[in-house]
Amino acid sequence: MRIGIFDSGVGGLTVLAAIRRRLPGVDLLYLGDTARVPYGGRGARTVKRYALECAQWLVDQGCDHVVIACNTASAYGVEAVRSACSPLPVTGVVFAGAESAASAAGAEGPILVLATRGTVSSQAYLRALNETLPARQIRQRACPLLVPLVEEGWPSGDVLDGVIDHYLSDLLRPTPAALILGCTHYPVLKEHLAKRLPEGLPIIDSSEAIAETLEAMYPDARVGAGHTRLCFTDDPEASRAAIQTIYPAGLSGADQVKLA
Amino acid sequence: MRIGIFDSGVGGLTVLAAIRRRLPGVDLLYLGDTARVPYGGRGARTVKRYALECAQWLVDQGCDHVVIACNTASAYGVEAVRSACSPLPVTGVVFAGAESAASAAGAEGPILVLATRGTVSSQAYLRALNETLPARQIRQRACPLLVPLVEEGWPSGDVLDGVIDHYLSDLLRPTPAALILGCTHYPVLKEHLAKRLPEGLPIIDSSEAIAETLEAMYPDARVGAGHTRLCFTDDPEASRAAIQTIYPAGLSGADQVKLA
Repeated sequence: MRIGIFDSGVGGLTVLAAIRRRLPGVDLLYLGDTARVPYGGRGARTVKRYALECAQWLVDQGCDHVVIACNTASAYGVEAVRSACSPLPVTGVVFAGAESAASAAGAEGPILVLATRGTVSSQAYLRALNETLPARQIRQRACPLLVPLVEEGWPSGDVLDGVIDHYLSDLLRPTPAALILGCTHYPVLKEHLAKRLPEGLPIIDSSEAIAETLEAMYPDARVGAGHTRLCFTDDPEASRAAIQTIYPAGLSGADQVKLA
Repeated sequence: MRIGIFDSGVGGLTVLAAIRRRLPGVDLLYLGDTARVPYGGRGARTVKRYALECAQWLVDQGCDHVVIACNTASAYGVEAVRSACSPLPVTGVVFAGAESAASAAGAEGPILVLATRGTVSSQAYLRALNETLPARQIRQRACPLLVPLVEEGWPSGDVLDGVIDHYLSDLLRPTPAALILGCTHYPVLKEHLAKRLPEGLPIIDSSEAIAETLEAMYPDARVGAGHTRLCFTDDPEASRAAIQTIYPAGLSGADQVKLA
């Protein structure tokens, strides 16, 4: 049993790490499209094409299940990837995060979604949440500065807090019911965000949501010792710092690959 | 006479605008590789490959001169592009900016270079400046947050000033002789930067430097009415706001193209 996970870059390693914690017995193959990262600001057709190329590569490597760890690729490409990979199962991070938020959100109050420009424009979280909570207000905010702040490991609290306040300031009235971290980089900022949010507000980390979904599907893989391989479309050396931060065990065997 | 200009994205439109102001009589073809922007954090071989693909496309469109407006592509790819396009002339933004800085820098004090991670790692400004000013100290700083701040048209002075101070704080002693804006996005921040720098410090805008170089080469094009065409590898709609800001005349005819 081998699960293939793809993301636009290194952020999806948070999804890999969450799956590995819950399913130590499964083989995991990660593809980060670092030669074309980020997908967040690109047009829908371009993102869909990139998502199809990544998914096809994972299938060609013998994966039995494809996970779209990138929110933007999941937002624009999940249907196309599902058709192309059929009959293999495909799990997109957007739907997993939306389900988790719907069950945590209680009876009232808007659900907040922080994400990239692409994910917001795609309205994928709106659609996914409306399936479960049809009458609930959803408030989305595109936060393009958060990814570079995470990637730089930004040291100054004032700048980071200023950016977070700027994005959140008009989202806190009426009191929200839950906040979805709609980009794989954002879990790193979870504690900073929590300080600026009402106490006890559920913060949905979509990497955990997707790992839970997979754990329910493959209970046999809860034990054992699976193999992990990381591949990138750009030189893995350029991703060294991020791998070190998010999934240090991956440092020993990261390869550069070319998509068809 | 047609000059082809390529950049990783929309920032190179500052170079296009500067050339157009000085050479109204020349045809200009702009290629923004927005489907793969930004180049700044990618590995050397990947950037070189992208640069070669962009240059080849411009040559295939009948350009007589290729301008590399992207600092990172110029840093890693100028020699490869020059060989591939020979005997057509190729002008890279790094060398033009370095020449301009060398002539503005006076007799002493370090020269500062603000740029992307890729441009800094390539040491291209170091090499170019050392050719003219062999004993001069060069101090480089990678500033990954400045591009997203420009692209978001960041409204809050405090955050922007905090980021600029963070990057400049340890570069102001000893008193510098000149500052090179080593990324096509940075000219937009010129006034903000000037406020945090010693009064009268020459700030080198590389788009102006490259336009000066071309004006000297093609004096006949100082008059006339040349045609301008903008092409992008991603949907031009995604670049609309940036085109509007940097080169509004280009909005009417922007096309999406596919590189070989």
